[in-house]
Amino acid sequence: LHPRIQLSKESIFSHMSRLAVQHGAINLGQGFPSNPPPAFLQEAARRAIGTVDQYTPPIGLPRLREAVAEDLGAAPEDVVITAGGTEALHALAESLYGPGDEVVMLEPYFDVYIPQARIAGAEPVMVPMRLTDRWEVDLPALERAITVRTQALLLTNPYNPTGSVFSRTEAEQIVALARQHDLWIISDEVYDELYFGPPPIRLRELAPERVFTVGSAGKRLEATGWRIGWIITPPGLAPQVAGMRQWSSFCSAAPLQAAVAEALPIARREGFYAQLRESYGRRKDLLEQGLRAMGLQTFAPAGSYFLTALLPELDAETLVREGGVAIIPGSAFYLQNPAPRGLVRFAFCKTEAEIEQALERLEGYL
Amino acid sequence: LHPRIQLSKESIFSHMSRLAVQHGAINLGQGFPSNPPPAFLQEAARRAIGTVDQYTPPIGLPRLREAVAEDLGAAPEDVVITAGGTEALHALAESLYGPGDEVVMLEPYFDVYIPQARIAGAEPVMVPMRLTDRWEVDLPALERAITVRTQALLLTNPYNPTGSVFSRTEAEQIVALARQHDLWIISDEVYDELYFGPPPIRLRELAPERVFTVGSAGKRLEATGWRIGWIITPPGLAPQVAGMRQWSSFCSAAPLQAAVAEALPIARREGFYAQLRESYGRRKDLLEQGLRAMGLQTFAPAGSYFLTALLPELDAETLVREGGVAIIPGSAFYLQNPAPRGLVRFAFCKTEAEIEQALERLEGYL
Ligand SMILES: CSCCC(=O)C(=O)O
Ligand SMILES: CSCCC(=O)C(=O)O
Repeated sequence: LHPRIQLSKESIFSHMSRLAVQHGAINLGQGFPSNPPPAFLQEAARRAIGTVDQYTPPIGLPRLREAVAEDLGAAPEDVVITAGGTEALHALAESLYGPGDEVVMLEPYFDVYIPQARIAGAEPVMVPMRLTDRWEVDLPALERAITVRTQALLLTNPYNPTGSVFSRTEAEQIVALARQHDLWIISDEVYDELYFGPPPIRLRELAPERVFTVGSAGKRLEATGWRIGWIITPPGLAPQVAGMRQWSSFCSAAPLQAAVAEALPIARREGFYAQLRESYGRRKDLLEQGLRAMGLQTFAPAGSYFLTALLPELDAETLVREGGVAIIPGSAFYLQNPAPRGLVRFAFCKTEAEIEQALERLEGYL
Repeated sequence: LHPRIQLSKESIFSHMSRLAVQHGAINLGQGFPSNPPPAFLQEAARRAIGTVDQYTPPIGLPRLREAVAEDLGAAPEDVVITAGGTEALHALAESLYGPGDEVVMLEPYFDVYIPQARIAGAEPVMVPMRLTDRWEVDLPALERAITVRTQALLLTNPYNPTGSVFSRTEAEQIVALARQHDLWIISDEVYDELYFGPPPIRLRELAPERVFTVGSAGKRLEATGWRIGWIITPPGLAPQVAGMRQWSSFCSAAPLQAAVAEALPIARREGFYAQLRESYGRRKDLLEQGLRAMGLQTFAPAGSYFLTALLPELDAETLVREGGVAIIPGSAFYLQNPAPRGLVRFAFCKTEAEIEQALERLEGYL
């Protein structure tokens, strides 16, 4: 095998989910919901099966490109449909960088960013976020990380794993940096509809000429296994990015593309996302209060379905085996800088009953 | 964008399908069936929607890995589920070669092989097949193409675009070559159930230690847009290959994996593939006889749903615009050697009515 195979390590999320199943643990590790997708999405898919079953264009089913564009205020020509957010990020890595290039990211980071950059031949350069009683972007450090080799900033908003959301000032300063150094921005916004305060800023609106936005029907519509994601590209670049994605999976699952095309306007019209926020907000509060009641420090998320906390003395591998709760150790999100001591991530996209039981088990274990 | 973006040219198949739609042409170009998938597959998918909707392990849903293994006489541990044959080939390219490596293929070739090799950094080395009154592997030329840099042979059986199937002697000689030079073999067998003579030899059975077999539920079950494919790896290598594929699309569409798991044993038990062969055999004969009646030379396919023929004086771009029939020009399958003069490929996975009408239009046009 090629030495690149070193990058094939099982992801921490798969690893923890596997251990959770094996040990009968409650899975607050990997970010996928316990709920099934909404009925309107399921029904649309059942109808599409048997009618939209063959290859679609690699750039996506026209009606889905239109639905995404309509939902996000973009032009349909600038939309590329992908096999989930993962393939969107993969296609962008292949389109934007190669050997000798650097891509600047924040740390803690979402695991897929690193091997994707390296497969493309580029080097990730990690800038640690500042952790006080909240997570903040360290702008001077971000600026210092940019070199003549930097091709792109890769950012997440709302942020996984921290749950933080850029303030307007942070977003504007980041965009100004990218302009000044003429960098692309890859803005991973798969949690765009999941926030607990003001709606997150869409970086594309500040710099449409240089921002690639990544989105996910799986995250929005609670169907993470359907693998329908998208990219909104700067004007004119969609055909080229689609041309790269055609070599990784050719096109996304055709009947599921058709179903998402039907579901996106329904979700918007019927206030599905507002309900989702309300429901996730309750679960976030439940988890947060439970952890605080145990005397633990938590960092209130402004978005996403993740919550970070400090649990020094706790080993996630032992917890899943002996305590019956799967979570993600903070160290999994750090490559070049030390993780804050005791940092862990909880996913709260699970039922209230699961969260309650996990809290009980955790309390017993501690 | 990175210079690699040169590889993002629209595939000839997408290109011709787009022109076919635009000009109201009958599409005998891209290889996807006019039929919907069988009812037992559709029903299984409708049932899976709403029950299997979240991430599966990147290596695949356990029951699908078992169904594929059972169908192909492999061990479930050696099966990796992928987003179609395309992602299977992509993951293998990333797993097996890099800069400085060569991968030997036959010409005419299936288009995806070249950009995938180059994205991995390797150089394709093309060995032309011999065309007399049939397509044959030129074994001495294959042997001459192997250098110290060669990592793998990439082969297709049944073969796209020629429809040829390796004879036992050809298969044994190819495997002997690979053994002698210690090469991997990637055997693209997505048309494994589609043959018109004796069943194609499975290269894996001749050399399980070095053959990666690529398969496709889309091709077998007439659901090319579902993006469910697989790899059977030599023993012990599946986790590593799955570890690479997790960075391109993470996992395949979960409900469609569940549906294929249910459908594979039904298809086998109920003789679905035999019916498919019978039905495709009729359509092949119809096309072949029609073309011969026009005085054209055709090369009888032993498998796949493609037929090659010689139509000198014909330009495929003009035909789709002015003659109302989309086919694939032979030149699209040649990179380093000249295409036989007038070579074209017809897909006969369309209805008899479509084939008849295409023949009429072609006759009128000629
Ligand atoms: C693709 S597996 C990771 C799922 C997820 O978003 C997370 O747990 O962070
Ligand atoms: C993935 S598009 C190509 C479909 C096909 O197998 C062909 O037409 O050769």
